[in-house]
Amino acid sequence: MSDAWLTTLITATPQEGFELAITLSRRGVKYTQPDVATLKRLRPAYAESADALTAASQVVAINFQTVAAANNYWRR
Amino acid sequence: MSDAWLTTLITATPQEGFELAITLSRRGVKYTQPDVATLKRLRPAYAESADALTAASQVVAINFQTVAAANNYWRR
Amino acid sequence: MSDAWLTTLITATPQEGFELAITLSRRGVKYTQPDVATLKRLRPAYAESADALTAASQVVAINFQTVAAANNYWRR
Amino acid sequence: MSDAWLTTLITATPQEGFELAITLSRRGVKYTQPDVATLKRLRPAYAESADALTAASQVVAINFQTVAAANNYWRR
Amino acid sequence: MSDAWLTTLITATPQEGFELAITLSRRGVKYTQPDVATLKRLRPAYAESADALTAASQVVAINFQTVAAANNYWRR
Amino acid sequence: MSDAWLTTLITATPQEGFELAITLSRRGVKYTQPDVATLKRLRPAYAESADALTAASQVVAINFQTVAAANNYWRR
Repeated sequence: MSDAWLTTLITATPQEGFELAITLSRRGVKYTQPDVATLKRLRPAYAESADALTAASQVVAINFQTVAAANNYWRR
Repeated sequence: MSDAWLTTLITATPQEGFELAITLSRRGVKYTQPDVATLKRLRPAYAESADALTAASQVVAINFQTVAAANNYWRR
Repeated sequence: MSDAWLTTLITATPQEGFELAITLSRRGVKYTQPDVATLKRLRPAYAESADALTAASQVVAINFQTVAAANNYWRR
Repeated sequence: MSDAWLTTLITATPQEGFELAITLSRRGVKYTQPDVATLKRLRPAYAESADALTAASQVVAINFQTVAAANNYWRR
Repeated sequence: MSDAWLTTLITATPQEGFELAITLSRRGVKYTQPDVATLKRLRPAYAESADALTAASQVVAINFQTVAAANNYWRR
Repeated sequence: MSDAWLTTLITATPQEGFELAITLSRRGVKYTQPDVATLKRLRPAYAESADALTAASQVVAINFQTVAAANNYWRR
């Protein structure tokens, strides 16, 4: 992928950090399956499976560990 | 999501930190499936599957690692 | 849950820390399925599945990472 | 369990640390299923499943992270 | 494998770090299955399974933790 | 196992560290299933399953975290 989508891990708030973790999780999928039409086709079944949603939340949690550490946990 | 639901990772006690980890885990699901009616429909089967409950507990454990580190493990 | 079940991550020994990790893992389940009767009903099949037991041990391992770090690994 | 099986995370060598990680992984199972006869009955099928063996190795890897950090990675 | 494919974990940007995490994830597969023809044969089904894509994204997330820490999170 | 197979986590290069992570992952399997003939029998099906290969890569990623930290990420 040639576009610049990740220039920093630093965010203003924990919530923005959590949303960056979601972006990282989706990008991890997109590097393996770059075809947007395929991803869209897979989405409905995926978003209706409790197991798939838990698995997605786990990837977000792992990426959020990274982003939170990068931001020194947004401690004042 | 436009509401501000995560303004800090700091909590007064480890138990509040654990409950924040649960919130983070649920938000990780909700970003993928924002439709509350769908989530409610999935819940009964989910909450009666031992495997699903263990998987949920694992996501909480990962998020609790983050929250605990943010709070320097609530050491005095 | 209104009861105070987690007031500190500090334990006297690594073994008590491991047992706290087990408590954390079970609490992670209980926040999703608070009904004790359901949990008791799920238990027999669960405790006879090698895959389920390995998954449970994994959640304990993740929580033990947190507790061990909190206790600075019980180094003297 | 009333016996003292974990008094320290410190080991003389990385290999002993890896073996401690295996002990931790097995103890994580045993706290959920304390009946040794059941565990012995589950073992044959388990030890012949590639997926189960990979899952077991993953739990060991997670526990080894903890033990290795406790020992400051056995750096001289 | 005799070729030198990993000489440093340091990258100029977080995005290059994420791409290195993808490389690490693929290498982890390739050490177990070095036959490129087999990998190519497995790919289509794999890239059309939502569960497989989430699992792949999780491995990337774990490797990205390592690369990000190595780069001190690309903090200025 | 009585042979000394792990005397240090320190390696000269990141690539050697990655290969040590692979060794750790395989040893984690071998402690559970020490019979080499069984492992050889399981291998073909295993190495042709995309899910199994991803799971194997995940264990390597977790072990690589440990080895990379031990080596202070091979920073100069």
